[in-house]
Amino acid sequence: MLITELQTPALLVEQAALRHNLDTMSTALPGARLRPHVKAHKCTSLARLQYANGHHGFTCATIREVEAMAAAGLGTDLLLANEVLDTRRLGRLAKDGHRVTVAVDSTETIEAAVAGGVREVVIDVNVGLPRCGCAPGEAGRLADLARGAGLVVRGVMGYEGHLMLMHQEEQRRAQTEQAMQHLLAASADVGGELISAGGTGTYSVNTWANEIQAGSYALMDTAYQQLGQPFQQALFVLGRVISVSAGWAVVDVGLKSLSLDHGLPSIDGTEVWFCSDEHTTFRTDGMPQPAVGDLIRVRPAHVDPTVALHDTMHLVDGTQVLEQWPVDMRGW
Amino acid sequence: MLITELQTPALLVEQAALRHNLDTMSTALPGARLRPHVKAHKCTSLARLQYANGHHGFTCATIREVEAMAAAGLGTDLLLANEVLDTRRLGRLAKDGHRVTVAVDSTETIEAAVAGGVREVVIDVNVGLPRCGCAPGEAGRLADLARGAGLVVRGVMGYEGHLMLMHQEEQRRAQTEQAMQHLLAASADVGGELISAGGTGTYSVNTWANEIQAGSYALMDTAYQQLGQPFQQALFVLGRVISVSAGWAVVDVGLKSLSLDHGLPSIDGTEVWFCSDEHTTFRTDGMPQPAVGDLIRVRPAHVDPTVALHDTMHLVDGTQVLEQWPVDMRGW
Repeated sequence: MLITELQTPALLVEQAALRHNLDTMSTALPGARLRPHVKAHKCTSLARLQYANGHHGFTCATIREVEAMAAAGLGTDLLLANEVLDTRRLGRLAKDGHRVTVAVDSTETIEAAVAGGVREVVIDVNVGLPRCGCAPGEAGRLADLARGAGLVVRGVMGYEGHLMLMHQEEQRRAQTEQAMQHLLAASADVGGELISAGGTGTYSVNTWANEIQAGSYALMDTAYQQLGQPFQQALFVLGRVISVSAGWAVVDVGLKSLSLDHGLPSIDGTEVWFCSDEHTTFRTDGMPQPAVGDLIRVRPAHVDPTVALHDTMHLVDGTQVLEQWPVDMRGW
Repeated sequence: MLITELQTPALLVEQAALRHNLDTMSTALPGARLRPHVKAHKCTSLARLQYANGHHGFTCATIREVEAMAAAGLGTDLLLANEVLDTRRLGRLAKDGHRVTVAVDSTETIEAAVAGGVREVVIDVNVGLPRCGCAPGEAGRLADLARGAGLVVRGVMGYEGHLMLMHQEEQRRAQTEQAMQHLLAASADVGGELISAGGTGTYSVNTWANEIQAGSYALMDTAYQQLGQPFQQALFVLGRVISVSAGWAVVDVGLKSLSLDHGLPSIDGTEVWFCSDEHTTFRTDGMPQPAVGDLIRVRPAHVDPTVALHDTMHLVDGTQVLEQWPVDMRGW
């Protein structure tokens, strides 16, 4: 099958770039040093490649992701790196023999883990991003509470998400060290073997965590591309030029097939003006002139919410469609 | 069923507000004066209420929307108000007895309509938004071309999308008149009965088009709310507070359950700081203090791409879940 036969918009994954990204990361962080985050691709077919590369523990952001990974036979060690109040679905997975660990940062989330039948937790620690996670000084107390309630506390996690897109590498490294000092202090109070943190932006500078939760590296986006890391853009939204006017043209890729929260998408060789629900308008003045019907690859600025808008990923080698992978971890 | 039993995040539609919005619009633009745009809700159950209110023609943005509407028995008169190059799926619907009309704005899209077996078209005219649509002076020539190729030309359409969120009503009216002068000129050249235009932002000021393609009015969002129109917010993303820290709290609604292209979402009585994939962080300093587990209704800034992130809409009356409607027009 050729990409010309695809209904546009369509999510494309360039096989060679994906392979390069997976192998580059697996060389940098082999085996258990990487706990790939599936939220960035939501695709068990892609997770299977990460597993084959030696990473048997995964990070998830939603219950649905945990369930889909378990159903795909990838439930060796699934960390839901997020707080959940109704943990019954997770408890059922644990009962069925999948290893499920959930993040807790409060009395309520510990009680919820117990109530739903979850057996293992990590203490989620705030390392500087104002989001989830307890204050570092609270981690030991919460660990005691969890153990007292019969839970296994496997260690700590803390996400330095505010540092991911910091452009200067040295600044990123210095601030990551500061953030990780909080996590290491909490780890000393909590115990357990896991010190889980990091992401694609800090994978090479975070030498304090003993596992890194990177996800975006596999597919990449234009925001991460600006960091100059050794990963290639593997994800594109394929569109067709449906209209050409004097000065601009329109491709049938819009807000419903890519996410704008990190800014406008990019099209090589031109300037994107704006996106509507099903359209991206781009400049043609002084640019190569597109024709109605031309296929165009649009580069999204943020991989995660873009993938979540699609039900299928098309693995391609240039114009050849090699495989069609369901985006089978959407929803909650 | 109560909303407390829903897996969050969950899309809620408040029945009374939806009813109010549907009836208010049907009073203002009865019967064929309104051609509801289904892209704003992507839900045939909701479209059925619009049909029952007397609107038997609908506007669609994608082939999938046209197919789903036809499959739901709502294929009396479906206008795909967008350019399409592979029209075979539309041709099959026409052959099966559904009335399908597609927008064309070029020789290529006219040829595509013929090739795929589509029988009826409208000439899409650029009325000021740099997107699809031919120059007004080209419309007559394209209509001749289409008729020469055996197509029925039902008239013209032109979307004044650049005026939808213009805050001053008088300015919106004046600029809509200017935009519609282009469409009326094109209509004089093209012939046919349809002069289709407009949206929720201009429904009350666009007295030149003979049918209005409004969609957002049914569910509404915070961007349209600022216009002071007589529509109520019917759409919410229900979330749970999963973490509370000193100064902020986090609800489990994020970029994967609402769209940020029109700005941050709103939460009554507080200030939203930022959204991540599965989180919204909001201020609690000097605000009512939320507790972990609290249910919160988040108001999205843009209805259309928010709905497209969900597979189900929950029709509610306060805390009661009345019905669960599939968002069955997603994808392409």
